Amino acid sequence: MLPTMRDDEESGRITLAQVAEKAGVSISTVSKVLNGRQDVAAPTRIKVERLLEAHAYRRTARSGREAPLIEIVFHELESVWALELIRGVEKIAKANQASVVLTESGTRHSPGPEWIEGVLQRQPIGVVLVFSALPDAVKQQLRARSIPFVIIDPAGDPDPDVPSVGSANWTGGLAATRHLVELGHRRIGIITGPEDMLCSLARLDGYRSAMNMAGLGSDPELVRFGDFHVGGGYEHAMAMLDLPDPPTAIFAGSDLQALGVLEAARVRGLRVPHDLSLVGYDDVLVARWSSPALTTVHQPLREMAEEAVQMLLRLRSGESPATRLELTTTLIVRKSTAPAAGDPAAAEGAVAGGLAEVPAE
Amino acid sequence: MLPTMRDDEESGRITLAQVAEKAGVSISTVSKVLNGRQDVAAPTRIKVERLLEAHAYRRTARSGREAPLIEIVFHELESVWALELIRGVEKIAKANQASVVLTESGTRHSPGPEWIEGVLQRQPIGVVLVFSALPDAVKQQLRARSIPFVIIDPAGDPDPDVPSVGSANWTGGLAATRHLVELGHRRIGIITGPEDMLCSLARLDGYRSAMNMAGLGSDPELVRFGDFHVGGGYEHAMAMLDLPDPPTAIFAGSDLQALGVLEAARVRGLRVPHDLSLVGYDDVLVARWSSPALTTVHQPLREMAEEAVQMLLRLRSGESPATRLELTTTLIVRKSTAPAAGDPAAAEGAVAGGLAEVPAE
Repeated sequence: MLPTMRDDEESGRITLAQVAEKAGVSISTVSKVLNGRQDVAAPTRIKVERLLEAHAYRRTARSGREAPLIEIVFHELESVWALELIRGVEKIAKANQASVVLTESGTRHSPGPEWIEGVLQRQPIGVVLVFSALPDAVKQQLRARSIPFVIIDPAGDPDPDVPSVGSANWTGGLAATRHLVELGHRRIGIITGPEDMLCSLARLDGYRSAMNMAGLGSDPELVRFGDFHVGGGYEHAMAMLDLPDPPTAIFAGSDLQALGVLEAARVRGLRVPHDLSLVGYDDVLVARWSSPALTTVHQPLREMAEEAVQMLLRLRSGESPATRLELTTTLIVRKSTAPAAGDPAAAEGAVAGGLAEVPAE
Repeated sequence: MLPTMRDDEESGRITLAQVAEKAGVSISTVSKVLNGRQDVAAPTRIKVERLLEAHAYRRTARSGREAPLIEIVFHELESVWALELIRGVEKIAKANQASVVLTESGTRHSPGPEWIEGVLQRQPIGVVLVFSALPDAVKQQLRARSIPFVIIDPAGDPDPDVPSVGSANWTGGLAATRHLVELGHRRIGIITGPEDMLCSLARLDGYRSAMNMAGLGSDPELVRFGDFHVGGGYEHAMAMLDLPDPPTAIFAGSDLQALGVLEAARVRGLRVPHDLSLVGYDDVLVARWSSPALTTVHQPLREMAEEAVQMLLRLRSGESPATRLELTTTLIVRKSTAPAAGDPAAAEGAVAGGLAEVPAE
């Protein structure tokens, strides 16, 4: 995991005194830079940071802090995933007597410079990044202070240089589509996520494989790229339902898109699951609360966050855990899927549809 | 805001040296207690805490900290409110170069002893409590360190001793019910929250006033106390829909209960809003994502959290803001309400039902 030394003049670790000497400053100035103090002139700070980087300086991890912190950085908090991830981080943090510091990085994908200054001062146990990338300079600043970082990346496109936790998108797409095939559906539409996200492509490939295995092929008119939001689900579902030969089932690619499909069905006077079967993806709380409750692919968000923090703690204690961990996804059958009309034989395979389940909280 | 001095021997402020002398310990021991350090024997710590309390000691607020923290404590993070409140706190914290520390207090309503130890060590700018009460001893510990605290209390039942932010529950109940009356509904059911929460009673009283003003009275069979969750909404709606003379409209008291009502309507083969009008409460994201999108009472959760942090900052700078702030609630008309069948005259007042609104994200 650790990058190799870039300095070929020396073999051993560089000391603070050596950095200070090379920079022509005092040891206390180098120490201030390491602690993120702002009372060091910018040119000096930059010179010291470059020396720390060139010599791959590693501070010995501090263990004496009495109120340890774990940082979690979100790209945007509005995501339905946010709360599940926060709960996972909070659980493992609490078990380790640590508190959680939360930052929303805003529209940019990496947190701003004021964030890294704060981190250097707060000296957390480690940093969990949700969907965020880190500039190389920031990675180096964290490494110099022995502050480990891990990416939670449900999109499946992590920085190869950073340990990350994801989940099995291809398998999820396969399971969702197979379930609909087993219910006797032949015209199965998919609204996957944006075309530039690996998780969208993996779910789509899972769908294609399931269709091919069933000898169904896939009709280009029934393959759509959405935006993972309600609006995208609604618009693509309206377009597919208005086709001369509309689908009898839709795999919506996310629970929010599935809610959009539900609304399109309502507007077109179709009942789910009687007239249209529907599978979501994620299994966030709204999937259980939906009417009817959504059959969906469970993405273990809380467990992913828990694993990310466990990875931090292992990195912190000097272990080198796996660089990439993918947790399994599971199909959860609720009430939005039913056997295809005119295919009574398929009813045998149907676990869904008829269950008189009282909605969970 | 500040309690009066409980010590009648002295008039001026007590100094650390005086506390140390009275306790028979060194000044550095008193200082360790103030900083939440654990290397002080428990009997000594208790003796010092009691002296600090008896003399209403107030540390001068620190202003020099370079990476300031604001703490937010939740009773439970699973609430649909949590994310809105976190976003409000995060916004004002960021504008003040502060970071947010998040704690879930678990099943107990007040955070545990390990939390207060952490707070004393972290020395935050202040503490925002969601729905939590604080034991008097903890209040005193925070006051002794000049760490202000504010309660966000949407339930409307705050500790009178602590500054708090809430919203106008009675007015919200009134607006929801008036909207249904104006649509021509006469049999209007209500599922309010638990009987022991003031916000449930205030919303119910708003409903009763609107019914009385319309000369409708209220049928005890149509007044129900739920649990603010989907399951409670479902069960009470099923019971009301099975009455010989069922309601044509339901005010659900929370958006989650409204989702339960939607499911009950679906199971009974009723279309919302054509056969049953429905109003939620809170206006959390699921209200917009619901199919149909919910007409609901907007509770300004994000603004409430923003106000709570602003109150902290004012307290911090020595001001004494209002003890209780109530923000207004607003009716948001979407697609779950329509004129009562057989009451075409009411259609004039109907803003809802027919709008071809594309679902928002």
